[in-house]
This record gives sequence, C-alpha cells and structure tokens, in this order.
Amino acid sequence: MSQPEFEIIARYFNQASLGFSKAGVDLGIGDDCALLTAPPGQQITISMDLLNQSVHFPVDADPALLAIRALSVNLSDLAAMGSVPLCFTLGLSLNNPDSAWLQAFSSGLTKIATRYNCPLVGGDLCKGPLSIAIQVQGTVPEGEALTRAGARIGDAIYVTGTLGDGAIALASLGIESESMQKISLCATGQTEQCRQYFKAAFYAPVPRLEIAQQARHLINSAIDISDGLLGDLGHIIECSGVGAEVHTYQLPYSDAAQCCTTEQERQHAALTGGDDYELCLTIAPENCASFERLAELADTRVTRIGAITDSPGILCLDQHSKNLIMQDQSYSHFKAKGA
Amino acid sequence: MSQPEFEIIARYFNQASLGFSKAGVDLGIGDDCALLTAPPGQQITISMDLLNQSVHFPVDADPALLAIRALSVNLSDLAAMGSVPLCFTLGLSLNNPDSAWLQAFSSGLTKIATRYNCPLVGGDLCKGPLSIAIQVQGTVPEGEALTRAGARIGDAIYVTGTLGDGAIALASLGIESESMQKISLCATGQTEQCRQYFKAAFYAPVPRLEIAQQARHLINSAIDISDGLLGDLGHIIECSGVGAEVHTYQLPYSDAAQCCTTEQERQHAALTGGDDYELCLTIAPENCASFERLAELADTRVTRIGAITDSPGILCLDQHSKNLIMQDQSYSHFKAKGA
Repeated sequence: MSQPEFEIIARYFNQASLGFSKAGVDLGIGDDCALLTAPPGQQITISMDLLNQSVHFPVDADPALLAIRALSVNLSDLAAMGSVPLCFTLGLSLNNPDSAWLQAFSSGLTKIATRYNCPLVGGDLCKGPLSIAIQVQGTVPEGEALTRAGARIGDAIYVTGTLGDGAIALASLGIESESMQKISLCATGQTEQCRQYFKAAFYAPVPRLEIAQQARHLINSAIDISDGLLGDLGHIIECSGVGAEVHTYQLPYSDAAQCCTTEQERQHAALTGGDDYELCLTIAPENCASFERLAELADTRVTRIGAITDSPGILCLDQHSKNLIMQDQSYSHFKAKGA
Repeated sequence: MSQPEFEIIARYFNQASLGFSKAGVDLGIGDDCALLTAPPGQQITISMDLLNQSVHFPVDADPALLAIRALSVNLSDLAAMGSVPLCFTLGLSLNNPDSAWLQAFSSGLTKIATRYNCPLVGGDLCKGPLSIAIQVQGTVPEGEALTRAGARIGDAIYVTGTLGDGAIALASLGIESESMQKISLCATGQTEQCRQYFKAAFYAPVPRLEIAQQARHLINSAIDISDGLLGDLGHIIECSGVGAEVHTYQLPYSDAAQCCTTEQERQHAALTGGDDYELCLTIAPENCASFERLAELADTRVTRIGAITDSPGILCLDQHSKNLIMQDQSYSHFKAKGA
C-alpha cells in the first residue's frame, strides 16, 4: 500500500486530537513553520532525540508503544530542565507505510501528547528506514532552568524511580545492544509479570515532569539518566567542577529487577546501562526534607544515593565504604567493540 | 574506525565556529535542552526537514555539500515565513563515522551557520543509515509572519530565482527519483559548466531570507517551492480560499536549464518537479513596484508569473491563453508508481 505524503499527514497526524490548539502555539501543522509565543518572562527549552530501528528498538516493535517511547524520552529531557512541555515536532522516516501501523503510531503519540498537553505542531515525513526524530519545545521561567552545571559540594544526590530497568528490559525483550551482552537474566527468574513490567519500562518510561517542575526551586542540578547513572552523573560533576560519591547499596531497584537479576547484574545495569529516563538531581542538604515531601505529594519515588564532593571523579562505595572500580562508564552507540 | 558519541560531538560539532554564541541563545550544546529567549514582541518560528540517504541524496554525496544542502533547505522554510534565523538542532544518524566525512560535514554546516548567523545548539547522534534531521528556529515580529493563508484575489504571483533547476539537477547528477524519469537531458546539451551549475543548484540552494525579511510588509502570502510550483502554489490557494492563474511563458529558467532541456521538459520540471527552494509570493498590485525595487536592492531575481483569482484551482496559461492540463501536480515520496 502506498499513500501520498500529504494524505498520510492529513489522515494520521494533522488531527484535532494530536495537533490540538494550545496557548503559546499560534500556528501548528500546515505551513512552512509553526509559530510559537513564549509567555512573558519565560525561556523556550528545546531538545531533539532520534530513535532508529534496529538500534533503539526492534524491527517488529508495536507502533503505538514505539510512539509512546519516542515522545516520552524527549519529554524526559524537558523534565531534566524543570521545563513545562509546549509542543513537539516529528520527523518520521518509513518505508511502505501501512494504515494499521500509522493508525497505531498516531494513537500512541496522541496518548502522550494529550497526557502532557504537548501537541504536534509540524515536522516532516520521508521514505527511508524507520526512524523517528522528535523535537520537544517547552517553557521555563527565565533563569530557573535546571542544568548540569549547578551541583555544589555537599549536595545530596537523588534519583527518581528505579534504576537499571532500561538496560534489563533490553535483555528481557531480546533487543540486541552492547549493554545486553553484560546482562543475562536468571534462567529461572523471569515471570510473565516481569516481562510485562520491563516492556512497560522500556516503551513507556514516565517523564518526571511533575516533580522537576514542582521542586525546581529546591534543585541545584539535574540530568536525565539515558546513558547510565555513572555517565550522566559524570556530566553533572564535569559541568559543575565537583566530584561525587555514590552509595551503591542505596541504588533503588524494581521488584522485577530484583526478581530477574543478580545483584551484580542490576548494579551494573543501573550504573552503566542506559535507557532509564529517570532524573538524577542534586539538592542542598537543607532542602532535602522539603524535596522529599514534594516528591511524596507528586507520588514520585525518590532515593538519596550519595553526595557531591570536592574530589574529582565518582567514587562508588559499597556498605563497607569499599570503592568499586567500574569500567564502561556509559553507553555509547559508537563505542568500539571491546574498548 | 569507531569513535564514541561524546567524542564525535566534542570534536566535530561542539566547536566555537559552529556552536557560536548569539543573543537569544542562552544555552547551547551540552545540556538536556538548549535555552532560547525570543526578543520582546517576537514569535518563534520552527521547522524540521529530513534528508535521507538514497531518497534525497546519493550514497556517495560529498559530506560538505550535503551539510550545506541540509541546513539551506531548512533555512528556506524560515525565509517562507519572513523569519530571521535564530539557531538549529541536528539529529544525525550514521554508520561507522569516518573522521574525514565528519570533518567535511561539520565544515559545510559551519559555512552556512556562519553565513546566516544560525548556530548549532543541540541535537542527537545515532547509529543508523545516513539520515539528517535538522530543525531551525527563527524569530519574526508578532503578527508579521508570512503564511500560506494570506493571498487575496488580484494579488500578483511572484517567484524568486529560476524554477526547475532542482528537478533537472537530479537528472544531471544521476540521482534516482520519480521525477527524473520524466526529464531526459538533451544528449548533446550538457556541458561541464551546466553540470557544475546544477550541482550547486542541488547542493547549495540559496535560502531567500533577505528579500522575504525586507519585503515582509509588502507580501500577502508565501511558501517555499519544495514540491514544484503547482503543488506549492496549490497550498496557497487552498489555505487562502482563492484560485490562481499561472502564465507558463513567464516562468523563469536558468541558462543551464535552457541549454540542457526542451521547453516542455523544463516547464514540467518547474511546475511539478521539486527541490527548487525558491519562494512563491503573492503581492497586492499596488505593492509590486516597491517589491521589485527591494528585490533589486537585495540582488534577488524575482519574476511575476501570474495572479490570484476567484476561480478555484490553478489555470496554467500559455501565450495564447490556452490552458495546459497538468498531471502529477507535485512530488511525493509516497506516490504510488504510475499513479
């Protein structure tokens, strides 16, 4: 089946349910550009993420879930800045688009766009191997954006949710990746319930927008964990000119991760796997109690896992304050095999 | 050769020459989002275009030229809104990146980014078949953006530059496309000079930013011609609820097009080919003289090719006012073969 580009856009993307109107979006799909207005005193935040078939997801991935993941991981970048979603654009490459696939993909996008009040305002549609480029636009009060550069010595380090699920999910779902080679699920461990949990963790990571927005005034620095805690915390300490110690025994794991993996495997997944899309935040000690209260109100699990220090690098300490040496500090698509 | 993602970004993209600082860009490459501020009284314009290997350009395309084209065609969308470039983001998929390729690609981007004062502020880098997603951000005074919806009955229709070169270039460069099947270059016609002209037309289309910005107050509607004049003018008449007549004998052609093609071929290329990235503009008769003066000052060729009418559809009239019937009104990546 082959449908012209304009017809596909009209039928599956330029719909009231997906390209809905919203204050700040003055012109959406249908012209050479979309037109946006930032509210007075607000900055615009923008972030683009790509998802490529066979690299980020399997060829036969459910299109609705794929759309949910693609938009959610982009929204996670807005969360990491303490930003509020404004709208998104979509650059979609696909071969021989099929009505059922397009309908499901569009419905997945609509679900997340609606949930986070983030309409589709434009983009491009091309022939090519399946690839999804999404750019999200958000707003944040001037000077209040969270960055990687604000961590201060003595800050507590928090993470939202649980860690390692992203990398373990790759193994659970049988998706090939470099990190997967390091995680072998316990032969006996994986129940259907675990499999469902990891599928949801992979395809529908929850962008932590609410806690980041509500606790913005309490947070000194933030990043979303897409490359593994060590790699992403590494960006914070590098940008902030500080060091960090991580208490590995405090890392939060899901029940499913605890059920399916050895402690070493899930710790490795948390520290060096990718795709968790949780936030890593640093908070001054005097603000920790307020932050934890806000997290409770936002129904968001947060865990204090370490502290910002003045010694360069990241120390990973176990219960006995023994430093664990980690290799492969983060996930890289281009890392040489065996490097 | 295989380089880690962060190293590639640092070495080839996060450079002062490409990610240069600029008023309105508060934070560029290196955090979860870039941070922008629109000047007071300005709206933000955004547009995303994809370029995929084997669809939009040949596998062995010169990376510097490819980068120039990728950014230029996006800037053309800003021109069509009468907008001023602010910055761009890049989503680059590529397999086994090679230093020479990356260096050349980066230098091409830098050339256009510098020329139009449009720095790189973020994006994503992934493994995958070569694909370039670029989103441009621009600014435009509130309420002054040119759209497709402003054409009025009686407006003169203008185009910038020459038409048909984009589609003829595909044939000249031997790039496979649906439109190429319809254009066979005269066997005797193509000189090396013509080949060089078409190569430049394809890889370095000039975004018509200057004339669009300077004559913004005179222009009622605008679109960039990426799908062929009939298709793109078709969007204007549809969005504006009007009709149009095009005087085919007034269509402007390059010397190279006149040298290498029959009149029928170049007319077909102009009306239904793609990739010209010139502007189609409609202007009230009383403003035409002022517009032509501004175009002369901006050293931009403009040609009056028809008028907006109250009859639905587009009439293509030859010197004898005979209506030409056109098929395949525009280029579509997904058009069924033989449809």
